[in-house]
Amino acid sequence: MEKTLCLASNSPRRRELIKYLGRPFITFSVDTEEKSSSKDPETFALEIANEKADGALEARGIGDDEIIITADTCVAIDGEILGKPKDIDEGFAMLKKLSGKTHIVATGVVIMSRRGGKVEKRSLCEVTEVTFAEISDEEIKEYLATGEYSDKAGAYAIQGAFSKHIRRISGDYNNVVGFPVAAIYEALKTV
Amino acid sequence: MEKTLCLASNSPRRRELIKYLGRPFITFSVDTEEKSSSKDPETFALEIANEKADGALEARGIGDDEIIITADTCVAIDGEILGKPKDIDEGFAMLKKLSGKTHIVATGVVIMSRRGGKVEKRSLCEVTEVTFAEISDEEIKEYLATGEYSDKAGAYAIQGAFSKHIRRISGDYNNVVGFPVAAIYEALKTV
Repeated sequence: MEKTLCLASNSPRRRELIKYLGRPFITFSVDTEEKSSSKDPETFALEIANEKADGALEARGIGDDEIIITADTCVAIDGEILGKPKDIDEGFAMLKKLSGKTHIVATGVVIMSRRGGKVEKRSLCEVTEVTFAEISDEEIKEYLATGEYSDKAGAYAIQGAFSKHIRRISGDYNNVVGFPVAAIYEALKTV
Repeated sequence: MEKTLCLASNSPRRRELIKYLGRPFITFSVDTEEKSSSKDPETFALEIANEKADGALEARGIGDDEIIITADTCVAIDGEILGKPKDIDEGFAMLKKLSGKTHIVATGVVIMSRRGGKVEKRSLCEVTEVTFAEISDEEIKEYLATGEYSDKAGAYAIQGAFSKHIRRISGDYNNVVGFPVAAIYEALKTV
């Protein structure tokens, strides 16, 4: 029997994208510290996805017929990792920094299952390059006024009102939204 | 005063994406033959977008305070242009052809406005490369069963159920959906 996917995530975007795997799933919340000291976006995202996986395992456990999935997405430019902005001024500074340039979006994913009494853990990290058009201060302010920026790494969502400023991407689009559907689908074939 | 955008298109995806330009707009339907003999995807998409523009102008005209936008999207691989599949068998053949390979999606866009009594026409073509994972016959049949394929060039929609088979893209994502939001936003700055 096909195992049930259990997405441990508070993100409404991830809860939407997991549907596209075309399998039965449930979602639940997980609270973790989200702490990493790494400056490398792939290491950073994988460390936090791992923290979330450990948190989910501790809080809830995992059944024999379940697969737990956790993910974390971060934005990086010029060796600096941009998290979620703490206020509108930090949001402005982040978008100003990203304007007219190419940055990296990395999503770390941890997939856990149980086999023969033991918990098996796999992980993957998907990286997408995103190129912004030049954005004027007026345009940044107009976007910040939508409020969309507040809970997003790098202060933007690729879907919706900001899409007019996204010149191109190279890689998986859903990875930028926060859940690399194709890579996870592929990985699940061998779980 | 900002001119009103008038999208001449029957496509629900385009009618959705035009919102992201952040300007007032209306939409209306346009019927054209959609005929081009070109084998080049960019020429093909631009010819049909131009036909739609001529059809819209003839059927409806254009006011001084309006900008009419038309678009056409085509899929091309190995020198062949794939239109909308005429039935499920052709849909299967198209997806089989695209499996495991990179193809091109071209959207031609025509933007018309009126200045000093004359109609001004501009056009642009945006190209995105899309790479599919290897897709089994079973997976193709499963997707075709959703019915999503039927009115899509190349027999797939990049958003939704098919996204698990999209390995990567290079270029504008919305262009593959059918409306290159960022390029149109940029072009409108000078209309």
